[in-house]
Amino acid sequence: MGKKVSSAVIRRLPRYYRYLDELHAKGVVRISSGSLAAEMGLTASQIRQDLNCFGGFGQQGYGYNVEKLRNEIADILGLKNYSRAILIGVGNLGRALINNFNFNRCGFQLIAAFDVAPGTVGSKINNIPVYHIDTLESFVGSDPPELAVLTVPSADTVEMASRLEKLGIKGIWNFTNRDLRPEDVSLKVENVHFDDSLMTLCYMIHET
Amino acid sequence: MGKKVSSAVIRRLPRYYRYLDELHAKGVVRISSGSLAAEMGLTASQIRQDLNCFGGFGQQGYGYNVEKLRNEIADILGLKNYSRAILIGVGNLGRALINNFNFNRCGFQLIAAFDVAPGTVGSKINNIPVYHIDTLESFVGSDPPELAVLTVPSADTVEMASRLEKLGIKGIWNFTNRDLRPEDVSLKVENVHFDDSLMTLCYMIHET
Repeated sequence: MGKKVSSAVIRRLPRYYRYLDELHAKGVVRISSGSLAAEMGLTASQIRQDLNCFGGFGQQGYGYNVEKLRNEIADILGLKNYSRAILIGVGNLGRALINNFNFNRCGFQLIAAFDVAPGTVGSKINNIPVYHIDTLESFVGSDPPELAVLTVPSADTVEMASRLEKLGIKGIWNFTNRDLRPEDVSLKVENVHFDDSLMTLCYMIHET
Repeated sequence: MGKKVSSAVIRRLPRYYRYLDELHAKGVVRISSGSLAAEMGLTASQIRQDLNCFGGFGQQGYGYNVEKLRNEIADILGLKNYSRAILIGVGNLGRALINNFNFNRCGFQLIAAFDVAPGTVGSKINNIPVYHIDTLESFVGSDPPELAVLTVPSADTVEMASRLEKLGIKGIWNFTNRDLRPEDVSLKVENVHFDDSLMTLCYMIHET
């Protein structure tokens, strides 16, 4: 790692990763910035600019080595760290994530989930044990996992986030309807907003 | 409606809507572009530029009327249309969306869901009836809903999307791991990517 890349570029890297990974899976070895641009709906010059930020893996006239570039992006994002993650709130959404979401692909390893419901606590979902939330502190102890996935009711968001912060968790992937802001907690947060893409789709459907 | 706004601005409108709606709920009547910018982590000049695209609701020195601006954005996005939506694939994620997601807020009204599982078909989830996917064509008939939410297994994505297109559905909110591209179907699509935000968070956690 050790490379410093602007946050706008960082936000685009997962998309590059996704496309390159798919190209690699299809057996594509090398791709020009023009073709990658067409594939991703960007301009070739934007792609060259972005990828130059961390060394520039393209050779003039030869394009990019798909696998090498994909691996480099994975390194920058830290996707090979497989940091430990816990999930708080095993409702429908929590359950859907435990069962279907590929945490490994995104650099994490889900190790446990927490809830309060009697039927859920003590069970295993997709091999992940579900513990009572009251045991969170003793589970974490002095070796906090890096990430917490937050799928609790909105009203519990801020309280749970500051509890997680006190435990030494470094980041929260927040699925609740209550955004976490810098004034709520000082750890790293990504608020997930389904609604934004649906509102955009609403516009597109009615546009013509 | 009838106003033509660039797609980059359109993509930012849901975020404006979210913030303005929250401010309105808190009782804020008027806000300066500077304060709105600080709240949203943008620059005042970007906000003025964006909002000028559709008439500019700010008066120099007086700021924006929060409720009026929120309603105008809702109008542009078409959030008051409450277009009909169906959901295909009642697994954990589908169930989580039916139970917890506020479709109304995003301009839609969920009217039915479809699946194949014997225990699920024939039931109601949060008052939404679940029908067998074989009855999709007869359910839709000559009056197709505007939107389909796709929460089927990845392998079924493209086939189901083109089936929905033939039925006259206008847009797909795609939650599968298989992106829908312009070469797959020609209706409007939003591919939802949880992973992008988690990969970004992965970077941020390891950054320092």
